[in-house]
Parts: sequence; structure tokens; C-alpha cells
Amino acid sequence: MNIAFIGLGNMGGRMAHNLLKAGLTVYGYDLSEVAIQHFAEAGGVVCDSPQAAAKQADVLISMLPAAKHVKEVYLGENGVLDVLKAGSLCIDSSTIDPQTIKDIATVAQSKNIHICDAPVSGGTIGAQAGTLTFMVGANDQTFDEVKPVLSHMGKNVVHCGEVGAGQIAKICNNLILGISMAAVAEGMALGVKLGIDPHALAGVINTSSGRCWSSEVCNPWPQINENAPASRGYQDGFATQLMLKDLGLAVEAAGQVQQPIVLGGMVQQLYQQMCMRGNAHLDFSSIIQQYLPPEA
Amino acid sequence: MNIAFIGLGNMGGRMAHNLLKAGLTVYGYDLSEVAIQHFAEAGGVVCDSPQAAAKQADVLISMLPAAKHVKEVYLGENGVLDVLKAGSLCIDSSTIDPQTIKDIATVAQSKNIHICDAPVSGGTIGAQAGTLTFMVGANDQTFDEVKPVLSHMGKNVVHCGEVGAGQIAKICNNLILGISMAAVAEGMALGVKLGIDPHALAGVINTSSGRCWSSEVCNPWPQINENAPASRGYQDGFATQLMLKDLGLAVEAAGQVQQPIVLGGMVQQLYQQMCMRGNAHLDFSSIIQQYLPPEA
Amino acid sequence: MNIAFIGLGNMGGRMAHNLLKAGLTVYGYDLSEVAIQHFAEAGGVVCDSPQAAAKQADVLISMLPAAKHVKEVYLGENGVLDVLKAGSLCIDSSTIDPQTIKDIATVAQSKNIHICDAPVSGGTIGAQAGTLTFMVGANDQTFDEVKPVLSHMGKNVVHCGEVGAGQIAKICNNLILGISMAAVAEGMALGVKLGIDPHALAGVINTSSGRCWSSEVCNPWPQINENAPASRGYQDGFATQLMLKDLGLAVEAAGQVQQPIVLGGMVQQLYQQMCMRGNAHLDFSSIIQQYLPPEA
Amino acid sequence: MNIAFIGLGNMGGRMAHNLLKAGLTVYGYDLSEVAIQHFAEAGGVVCDSPQAAAKQADVLISMLPAAKHVKEVYLGENGVLDVLKAGSLCIDSSTIDPQTIKDIATVAQSKNIHICDAPVSGGTIGAQAGTLTFMVGANDQTFDEVKPVLSHMGKNVVHCGEVGAGQIAKICNNLILGISMAAVAEGMALGVKLGIDPHALAGVINTSSGRCWSSEVCNPWPQINENAPASRGYQDGFATQLMLKDLGLAVEAAGQVQQPIVLGGMVQQLYQQMCMRGNAHLDFSSIIQQYLPPEA
Repeated sequence: MNIAFIGLGNMGGRMAHNLLKAGLTVYGYDLSEVAIQHFAEAGGVVCDSPQAAAKQADVLISMLPAAKHVKEVYLGENGVLDVLKAGSLCIDSSTIDPQTIKDIATVAQSKNIHICDAPVSGGTIGAQAGTLTFMVGANDQTFDEVKPVLSHMGKNVVHCGEVGAGQIAKICNNLILGISMAAVAEGMALGVKLGIDPHALAGVINTSSGRCWSSEVCNPWPQINENAPASRGYQDGFATQLMLKDLGLAVEAAGQVQQPIVLGGMVQQLYQQMCMRGNAHLDFSSIIQQYLPPEA
Repeated sequence: MNIAFIGLGNMGGRMAHNLLKAGLTVYGYDLSEVAIQHFAEAGGVVCDSPQAAAKQADVLISMLPAAKHVKEVYLGENGVLDVLKAGSLCIDSSTIDPQTIKDIATVAQSKNIHICDAPVSGGTIGAQAGTLTFMVGANDQTFDEVKPVLSHMGKNVVHCGEVGAGQIAKICNNLILGISMAAVAEGMALGVKLGIDPHALAGVINTSSGRCWSSEVCNPWPQINENAPASRGYQDGFATQLMLKDLGLAVEAAGQVQQPIVLGGMVQQLYQQMCMRGNAHLDFSSIIQQYLPPEA
Repeated sequence: MNIAFIGLGNMGGRMAHNLLKAGLTVYGYDLSEVAIQHFAEAGGVVCDSPQAAAKQADVLISMLPAAKHVKEVYLGENGVLDVLKAGSLCIDSSTIDPQTIKDIATVAQSKNIHICDAPVSGGTIGAQAGTLTFMVGANDQTFDEVKPVLSHMGKNVVHCGEVGAGQIAKICNNLILGISMAAVAEGMALGVKLGIDPHALAGVINTSSGRCWSSEVCNPWPQINENAPASRGYQDGFATQLMLKDLGLAVEAAGQVQQPIVLGGMVQQLYQQMCMRGNAHLDFSSIIQQYLPPEA
Repeated sequence: MNIAFIGLGNMGGRMAHNLLKAGLTVYGYDLSEVAIQHFAEAGGVVCDSPQAAAKQADVLISMLPAAKHVKEVYLGENGVLDVLKAGSLCIDSSTIDPQTIKDIATVAQSKNIHICDAPVSGGTIGAQAGTLTFMVGANDQTFDEVKPVLSHMGKNVVHCGEVGAGQIAKICNNLILGISMAAVAEGMALGVKLGIDPHALAGVINTSSGRCWSSEVCNPWPQINENAPASRGYQDGFATQLMLKDLGLAVEAAGQVQQPIVLGGMVQQLYQQMCMRGNAHLDFSSIIQQYLPPEA
């Protein structure tokens, strides 16, 4: 089975590497020379355009920054849907709005190309270790086909529903995540200001109804979770600007279906405030700095 | 050991009942004749004032609606601190602001009376079954003394810190709870509007970083959790007006120490909107109705 | 002077009509047959494409629903910039994000075509009466050239700065407007619930520091302003869905420059809630219904 | 006519001074020795308790920090209602919640003492110059009686309705004010970040539907209004902590009648954030710093 991989950046490069390690042939494309060089060193076959890669492939995987890049690669003037064989398989692992992938799927279907969205969680660490979670939107048959491919790059492959459902699941999960992290930040900062020990407070919350991933695994107060970004200066986590991007997708998708997301609309701006203050690259749990005096 | 119990309402009455079942002598007081009658039928000794009950007691427990009642019972003209024996023990299980119990503790200490705050979670069901969680604020010695008493009424007795820390822990937990419930409501409603199946969505969230008590145990979307209020018309849970009360305490306590709680200040108003619309008695997960069109 | 007019809908049709009444020759294009028919009846010359109209014109005016339409008309495969004469003048009166018009201006400049953004306020009533306000973004020379043309359709032509500044001014004004209307709604509803007469309250506000356009001219409480939409069932004003669109532009533009707009992000969702509840066509002052019990 | 004046601080001291300048006899009380000394130097008669002052008076005026002080002075153990003559007049100019003054009025009425609430706007400058606005809650007869007294201290005496209506009007006005100031801050900061000149932007807003007191008279962007606090480093205006107090009253009063104030609940926290960052004493228009990067 030949694979085309479009987008070999921080995430895509590591994912492609795991495919190569599994013994697959991977035809890759990226705009960045550095990315291409790493890919070649790992044994990948370098192509000079998405179409060139697609022409060799039974399965095409894309991992791109935003919807406009995805549209360009699939539907643009030199788009891959024009050269892929009938019956081939496409997997878009970019995080984008659900409507874009549905639009692309309509075109793909007319050419008998099977497509799914499969955004990931797990970050660059998961990409490197091959332990990503894939949230897959596809019909049953396509899901069965993509599952073995994705299993080379991740350990959880979840079928969320038809095409688009992967993006929807990711957007909704991260919407809740972005809000609940800010909630934990507020609660921890309030408790400490009122005089309770942060470890005692986290202990109560984590055995009570306030418990959540943000309180248990990635608590924004330093030293509650030894391995959380808060315990290493908010470095090397899920960057605030990426949370901001995902909340932007949630607000955009909500607007498309005229669905209000009151807390989402607000916390988007709180993370934006963090970015304005120069903290875009810190882990998003650094939102707790909004609740601490400057000297802290 | 003789116990005085002040406040025999929905919660206090059930808690006192468990003490009586454990074979303790309980001297009780309440303004309500109905409450008093139930207490007498269960074997309690009825007193006609808090002081009358306190005079008989080694341990006094109070379970009252708000800070003003607590102040009146302890520090008022006929307050119990004037008649309790030196060395006796007081447990306030009301949910109030942390400052009030600290103020009362200062007076109690001057009379060598040991006091703690011990607000509960678990609701009337937990009170009846004797499975409440107590969040206790007390020094180490007092905590050791109150723990066996509280164990007759609950299964978790958590030491949160010095006097006031129990209230702080409860307020902060419920602040996070109130926000994360609204977050899950927003995420579930958005996902379903975008076309994903609610069970599939809940499945993804509960194995991802959006998971929290509100998504796993008390999901606001009907039929996700069979035993959650959402699956029985939002009846018999934690009433929206009680969540509103607790968020009011959070905003008040935050104001006293000039600590901003941006999301807390806002969701308080969203729950208030629910109460304005006549839903004060529904479980607080009914906040999801803010995100659904009227016919839904 | 020949004019091309692209987009002859509710606003554009009325604006073109005023140009025709002023004796100018207008070449028009619209997708809608009804719009075209009205335009023809008023004396306009119907064209079958934007390019066909543009070929006849010294000045081209566009009035379109959204940025994608504007991009298509100016820069698309059959875009007008390809056929307009060097030295001709373009006026885009659509309400869109500032970046799009700046991008178009860059291309126009390379062809020596002068362009400005000139979004309007005043609604269909102002368009019909020729009393619109135009907020113009243009260099000084272009502003001097467009002013006489715009004066046929409006009574205030304000120079806001370079290209894009008209859009920026409109977005920022409407951001403040959307928030302050909600603020007045909150204040009026609170006062009345607390027992003050709404007329007395409006009187105090309008002579105090709370006064604003939304309290003085378009008060959301019925019968405060006889001519306001609130006094006629919130009909025939500035539709909630249009306010929602403008707040969406504000959030989008803010995101592009990473500027937080915390209140803006939230009120966008409150207006979205109104639309979800079926009130998209009511005047945006109907936001006050968020603050009134259902029976009111 | 003899006047008792309780509370001779920054506001009360200046107000009493204007009564003395008008030739009235004023019996004053304050806890602060400095306040008393200034009052004595201005010709006031110093009393050693509120009751001592009240015993001499036909009219009693109070200007106190918070509801608890007002309750103490009127209804406390040595309260003035116990010693005032039947038929005498009380004016409370403190800014407090409406319910407290209504409760006091009920007691006063039983003793045939006429009472009104008359909170002010205009700050210490207005107090000194005798140009305050009084928002009066009183029945018609009492209003006619207090108006000449208040006219010695202010230039606008507005009848808002029955007892409590003055407080309601002030709270609602300041609620709108606090929100619209934040709205203007957001709009100005966004516009400037997008590249428009702040003076041009303010010009457009102030002739459009975004105009409000905060944009026209007290614009938060420096140098838009020469005399606004923003043009002198946000010094000597309406302190952020006082706006925070008034928003706290709004949230509290709204809670008492179960009225949601969504924006109010949120901006309260934004001003609280400002105070947390050490800006409590700056004019509340300094809220614009929430929207500017740290170096600005």
C-alpha cells in the first residue's frame, strides 16, 4: 500500500515517520525545505507537488494548518482529487471547520474517492510516540478501511459518525476543555486567595463534582500535577494560541448553524487577552495568570 | 455524648435522624412545627430554643439556610456560645461565606469552645442514606474530635484546613461545577446542532480532555446518563436556585478579597435567567435549555 | 458621468434609484430578477454581468451581502478590475471586514484604479430618503472625488482615514452599539423589576452618565421613544441578524489582529440566542426580551 | 431650620460646608477627628454621637459608606429614629441597596418621620461646587420639603419615584455606565489596533449610534477629551473601586428580585481584575488597560 502525505510539519512529519517505521512507502510533500529534508532522511519519497504525491498513492493523508490550505490541496487548480484513482482513500487530519470537509467529501464522492476527517488529540508528543487519538468522521465502510492505517500513528481510533463528525467532536471537546480550564483557574485562584492550601483544595475538587481533566491531570496551579505544564513554567503543552484557534473554530461553526455559545464566545476573548500579553506560546493552563496579581 | 441539633429541615432533619439511629441522644430545635414533629417521632428531644438545646449538649450541630441565621444562633442575643460549656464542640454544616464562620470561631475560641465548619455535598439523598461528604475546616485536634460524630451522617469526612476552609472548598468546587455544567451544555447542544449523535459525542468527550463530572455522571443531555436528572425531566437533583445561591456566595467571597471571577460572575446570571423563567426548582443541568430553541 | 452599480437589493436598489433621480446614467447588475425589474422601471440600464456594467462606467459602486461576494465581483474570474479603465473610481458600500477591501485596493492600485470603502448607516429608510451616512476609507484625492457621488445618496460623508478605515469605523461603532443596547436593556429591566417607573428611569439616565443613543433615541423599553422599534413591537428597525453579522465581523477582525473584545464576544452570543429563538428579524433592541420573564 | 449631618467625609464634609455657607445651623457627627476638625473650622457644631446631633434637628442628612452604617445610624441601639421629633425630615444620600432604605422608611413612617433616599452624582468636585445631582426617592409631599434643602448642595434635584427609587435610578444608571465605558474601551482599542486614527474614530462614534457619555465626555482613550481623566493619567475621576462598589450593589439588588444582569455580572469582575492589579484608585475609564498590551 502506497501512501501520500501532504503536510510534514511538527505533527505531520512525526506521523509520517511512524508510517515509514511500519514499513510503508510514503510519498510526501511540504512547502518547507527543512520538513522535506527530515522526511527524506527518514526514508520518505519526496515529491514536488501534492498531485505528484497523490498520483502514486492508494491512501492520501493531509495534515495542514487551516481550512484554506485543505481546500487548496483537495479542490484547488492542482488539487489531488483530480488525480487520485477511483476507489482510493483520503484522510484529513487537520483541525478545521466541519463544513469544509463535508464540501470536499461531496466532490470526492462524485469521483468515487472515499474520504474521512480524522483530527487528532495528543500533540507532538503523541504524534512522535504513535499514541494519538483520532476522532474519525466517515461511513462504516470507510472507517473500517482507514482504521488499520491510523493505527500505525495512534492508539485510539474513535468512530464519531459520518464525514464531519470527527471535526465536530474535536471542536466540542475543546470548547468544553477551554472553558473548564478557565473554571479551574478561577476556582483555584479564588480558594488560595481565601486562604486554603492549593493541594487540599485540589484534593477536594478531584473527589467532588468539580473534578475534570483540567483539575485532575493538567491543574493550572503549579506543583499540583508534577507532569503538568503548570509545574514547568507552562512550557511544552497545548499552546494558548492553538486553544484560541480551536475556540475560533467553535465560534465560527456555531455561527454557521446559528447556535449560541455564550461561555465559548467569552473565553475565546480571555485566551486572546493572554496572547495579546505575549503568552501565545505558553500552555493554555497559563490562563490562571488572568486571576493573579502581576507580581505573582 | 449528648448532641444539640439546630435546624431540622430537609437536610438537618435527615442528618439528625441518622444520629438517633446510631443511638445518640439528640436535643433539637427548629422554627417549623412540622420539622419538630418528625424529629420527635424519630426519638429526638424537642427544645424550645437553641439555648435550651445547647445547655444539654457536649456537641452542637447547626444546619441553617444562610449566614444571618448562623450568626443569630451563635452570636445573637440568645446565642448558644453564651451557654455552651467550655471544651464543648460546635459543627456548622450550613453553606455560608467563609468569613462568617471565622468571625464566630474567634468568639468561640475566647470561651474555649471548639468549632468547625463542615458543609456537605450529597443532597437530601445523601443526608437520608448517611453518605454525605463533609468538607471540614478545623485545627487538627478539633478535626479528630468531630470526625467520629460526622461519620454517623456521612461516608467521606475531608479535612480541608483551618476554620473556614470547608466553606472555601465547597464554594470553589461549586463554582467550577456551575461553570463546567454550562460548558458541557454548550458543547453538547452545539455538537447536536452540527449533526453529531449525542451519545457518540458524549463518548468522545468522556474519553478526552473535555471530560468532567458534568459530562460523565450528570450529563445535561437526556438519556446519556440513565440516572441523571436530565433523564427524568430535570427533577430531583441539585436545584438551580441552590446552585444560584452557591455562586452568589462565590461572588460575595471573591468580592471580600477583591478576587475577580469572570466566568463565575457571568454564569451566576445565566442561572438567574433560568430562575426568572420559572425553572428555579429544576436540576441545574437544565441550564442546557438556554441553548435550545423554545420548542425543544 | 456613467455609473455602474453592482448589487441592487434592499439597500443598493434604493441607492441606485437616487442616482437615477439625480439624472445620472446607471448601468446595473443583480442576480435577482425582481431587483433588476425595479431598477429597469426606475430608468436604469440593465446589464447581464458585473463586467458588462463596469465596461460602461467611470465610477463603479458595489453593495453586496458579504466579503466573498465582494471578492468575486472585483477579483474573480470575471472580475471588474480586469475591465475598468485606468483612472476610474470604485466605491464599495458593503459592510465587510477591513482586510478584504485593503487586499482589493492593492490590486486596484496596480491598475491605477482608485478605490474606497464606504459602508453606510441609516438602513433602508435612509437609503430611500437619500439621508445615509457614509463612512469613507480613502486617500485624500479619492475622497474628494467620491464625495459628490455619495452626496446624491446620503447627507453625511465622513472621511475616516485610508482604505479600510470606513469598515473599521463602522465595525467599532456597531460593536459599541450592540453592547450599549444590551446594557440599556439590562438597566431598564432591572429598574422596572425593582419598582421604578420606566419613564422616570429613562429620564434620569438620559440626563446622567448612562445616557447613550440606545437610551435616548432607541430605548428598548416600549413607549419611551414614540418612534423607536420598541414602541411598535420591535418591527422595522435594525434587524437582530444584521447586528449579529456586524458583531461577527468585529470578532473576526479582532481575531485577525489578536485583539481581545471580551464584551463583544459575549454579546454576539446573546444576539445569537435571540436569533435561535426565532427573533432574527426583530429590531436588535428586542434583546431586552432576554431580561424579561416569558409571559411579559 | 436646624440640620443634623451624619458622615462628614470626602463627600459629606463638602456638602455640609455648602449648607453652612448658606447660613444654616448644622450639627455634625463623624468618627474621624480630622473630618470633625474641618467641620468645626467651617462653623459647624460638633456633636459626639448621631443621636446628639439628631436631637437638635428639624432635618437630618446622612452620607455614609455602606448599608450597614446607614442601618446602624437609623435603627441601631442608639439610632436617630428614636430621638428625632415627629414630623422631622431625613435625607439619606449614601449609595446603598434600595431595600435597606425602604426598611428604614417603614420604621420611620411608624414614628411620623418623613424620609427619602437622595444618592448623588457629581463626585467630590460637584460636592465642593454645590453642583451635585440628587436622585430622590420620596412621596410628593416629602419631595417638596427636601428640594429646597438639597438645592443648597446641588443644581439638579430629580424626583425618581417613591422611597428607594433614588437608589434604583442610581444603580441602574451606573450599571449602564460601567458597561458602556467598557464597550467604548473595547471599540477604541480595537479600532486603533486595526489602524484607524483614534480621533477620527471618536468623531465617527460621537456622531453615530455608538455615542454615549463614555465616548463623548469621558473617552477612555487619552487626549480625545482634554478634561477627561484619560488625558491626565486616569487620575482624579470616578475611582474604579467606587464603580466596583456600585456594580456590586446592582448585582446584589438584582439577586434580591431574581433579575439576571448578564453583562453587569461580568463587567463587575473586569473592574475587580483592575483592582486586583493595583488600579483601584484610577478613574474607571482605565478599564481600557485590559485591552492594551503591557508596554502600552
